[in-house]
Amino acid sequence: MTKTVYQPGDLRVDAKRINATLHETCEIGAAHRWGPGEIETGMCRLALSDEDKEVRDWFTAELKRLGCNVVVDAMGNMFGIRPGKKEGAPTAMGSHLDTQPTGGRYDGILGVMAAIEVLRVLKDNNIETEYPVAAVTWTNEEGARFPTSMFGSGVWADVLPLEQSYALADIHNPKATVKSELERIGYLGDAPCSYKDTELGAHFELHIEQGPILEREEKKVGVVIGGQGYRWFDVVVQGRDSHAGTTPLQMRSDAMLVAARIIAAANDVAVKHDGLATTGIISLEPGSINTVAKTVNFSMDIRHMNDDKLEEMDKDLRARADEICRGAARGCTVEWNKLSAFPVTKFHESCVDAIRAAAEFSVGKDLVRDIYSGAGHDSCQTALHCPTGMIFVPCKDGLSHNPEEWCTAEDCALGTQVLLDAVMAYDAQRQS
Amino acid sequence: MTKTVYQPGDLRVDAKRINATLHETCEIGAAHRWGPGEIETGMCRLALSDEDKEVRDWFTAELKRLGCNVVVDAMGNMFGIRPGKKEGAPTAMGSHLDTQPTGGRYDGILGVMAAIEVLRVLKDNNIETEYPVAAVTWTNEEGARFPTSMFGSGVWADVLPLEQSYALADIHNPKATVKSELERIGYLGDAPCSYKDTELGAHFELHIEQGPILEREEKKVGVVIGGQGYRWFDVVVQGRDSHAGTTPLQMRSDAMLVAARIIAAANDVAVKHDGLATTGIISLEPGSINTVAKTVNFSMDIRHMNDDKLEEMDKDLRARADEICRGAARGCTVEWNKLSAFPVTKFHESCVDAIRAAAEFSVGKDLVRDIYSGAGHDSCQTALHCPTGMIFVPCKDGLSHNPEEWCTAEDCALGTQVLLDAVMAYDAQRQS
Repeated sequence: MTKTVYQPGDLRVDAKRINATLHETCEIGAAHRWGPGEIETGMCRLALSDEDKEVRDWFTAELKRLGCNVVVDAMGNMFGIRPGKKEGAPTAMGSHLDTQPTGGRYDGILGVMAAIEVLRVLKDNNIETEYPVAAVTWTNEEGARFPTSMFGSGVWADVLPLEQSYALADIHNPKATVKSELERIGYLGDAPCSYKDTELGAHFELHIEQGPILEREEKKVGVVIGGQGYRWFDVVVQGRDSHAGTTPLQMRSDAMLVAARIIAAANDVAVKHDGLATTGIISLEPGSINTVAKTVNFSMDIRHMNDDKLEEMDKDLRARADEICRGAARGCTVEWNKLSAFPVTKFHESCVDAIRAAAEFSVGKDLVRDIYSGAGHDSCQTALHCPTGMIFVPCKDGLSHNPEEWCTAEDCALGTQVLLDAVMAYDAQRQS
Repeated sequence: MTKTVYQPGDLRVDAKRINATLHETCEIGAAHRWGPGEIETGMCRLALSDEDKEVRDWFTAELKRLGCNVVVDAMGNMFGIRPGKKEGAPTAMGSHLDTQPTGGRYDGILGVMAAIEVLRVLKDNNIETEYPVAAVTWTNEEGARFPTSMFGSGVWADVLPLEQSYALADIHNPKATVKSELERIGYLGDAPCSYKDTELGAHFELHIEQGPILEREEKKVGVVIGGQGYRWFDVVVQGRDSHAGTTPLQMRSDAMLVAARIIAAANDVAVKHDGLATTGIISLEPGSINTVAKTVNFSMDIRHMNDDKLEEMDKDLRARADEICRGAARGCTVEWNKLSAFPVTKFHESCVDAIRAAAEFSVGKDLVRDIYSGAGHDSCQTALHCPTGMIFVPCKDGLSHNPEEWCTAEDCALGTQVLLDAVMAYDAQRQS
């Protein structure tokens, strides 16, 4: 390396190696076979389980072999830091090693394995970066076993309180808390869990898209420019139960009719504002075929790429719901219980530019697309405290959180190359 | 009695006695106390339970005391037949003694106790009717313990097969079938269960409205001119589950959105045709707040007072559902599984006229109203084979199938007087 500034493609990832390592480590927690091929299974590697411990042990050993200093913090987040020419916060490459109970082999895992591959390329080529570079795995991104997603990065980012996260219990075993399980598997680290103590210079994350856009538009790389803001509600419609045969329509307070109209209206509101609205849970009482529903509970998930528009959608939807209650189904009331909310994330221009340049170098402008992340990611937490960027690669049919989740070997390697090039360019730019 | 033709009011019921007897027998199976008063409880007297046996024993003894011949048929339907001047099929007064698990004191019970009161009045006044008169209780009208409603009268009417009804099991105990429970409580009768073997000359039924119309319109008696036809469906919408954050609206096959639109459309269709449409049950899969629903199952209950209009509603609704599937939520399919259907019942002019005349005599034209029965009743089965009529009295807030179901003592007595006058007039008219 005699050039002063890194150019994309100066270093090349080993396409076979990244895929081989990904699938080798997926033997830890492989589950839900769906085809005869060696890698045709899904994953069940729940946060802080025995399988999580096993893959963390592998991660630790590999990081040490690659010359990294391994830091484990109080939430079990792991940082493998490879020194650079100068001291300073590392340019991090992070994602997560835990999966959904019926998860796939790419969600999170690809990002961590790609980081390992980048470190291997640096070692193989005896590269000394300007600043330290790190591979990171964040604890319990999925929120599947302990029901809060992204809590490792959330505590680090000071979005969630440490003690509250420690107290969370396994959804199937109230005796197994986050803290007791961190202790049990030996990953309750010494380092305080905070962006102030384990500072990051930047955070890059390679991830499968988990949606259908890249595939349908035949793009190879998504340059993620931000994450949608979202609000989650438990909506409760209260009406009055009455006999479905004997109660005239105009004398009903039909909670199910009101709920149906609100769900339909939410879609209209989302279309109008170019956002998203989804109802994924619903239940009603008393639940008899010939009884008008008294109470309906349903979830409402609204999302937008612009916080002001999200607020407008929220107001618009509540106004529509009030109107619906005043309408045909008189006497019904609607209550909005906010379960959680996350503002819009804007990724950092310097990271986004480095990723875009790297992607365009690898596959050409036409196969690259700016994209918003619809799902939450650890990068949405790191973005609160350091320059952050994400790379999306396509996944088959947009399918994720499913054993058949699939990203081609070619796309896994391509995403890793983009990560390598973006991180190297970013490191060089930190210098210049 | 020297008159040749009975005139309404010639005989009078004992208002205190009918109410006293109703509430005395409600001590068998009283449950769900909701107030401090003696009669401020609901009922739990499930079909073929120990409590049902106890009240049947009381009914048998009282019928015998009143000079009736008691016939029990193969479904446990009980006919207490008081001889008249001539032989022939009796003019029956029937309803049911079983209740919902959280039922009230009037639904069904009022009709049977009113029949007893009529027989008492006839005995007290040494009346010899032209034809026999009978008090009837039909088995398992509610369908609460054994999940088919009106099956006693349904088998009698040849609408349901006997063996199929015998095989039905207690919803909580698969070992207790209808047949084994009939045997256990001693009410598996010798008489074949058929309208051909236990012929009825007519069937009159006094019942609470179970709806809000009479009360809201301040009417005292409803002259029931028929029962609505109804069709029950289990509707299945199949879509595709996808991530609520990453799947653009136009790429979704959102089964919940389709279901919501169909439920809302069903109400529009019902308004348009002046019928009823209700969804009282709904569930979805996979059921996660940030996952677009793959499958939604919901019930659809449509009713109309006219069979042709009911058919039109059915067609209209399916067409609307297909249109909705072709619309925004592409790729969804909808399947209609018919669970049951009952055609419109038209009560017999001679019975309806006798009831109307009796009601108008008691309270005046202004307080009487023609009405359709929204719910199913044993009378809808008997109407298939003999002239049938029903009398409705108001119940508080239209509330039924609820421990707080309430009919005033005055209205119980009024309904019984109308039953007496209608049955006597009908008996006289059979003669003339």
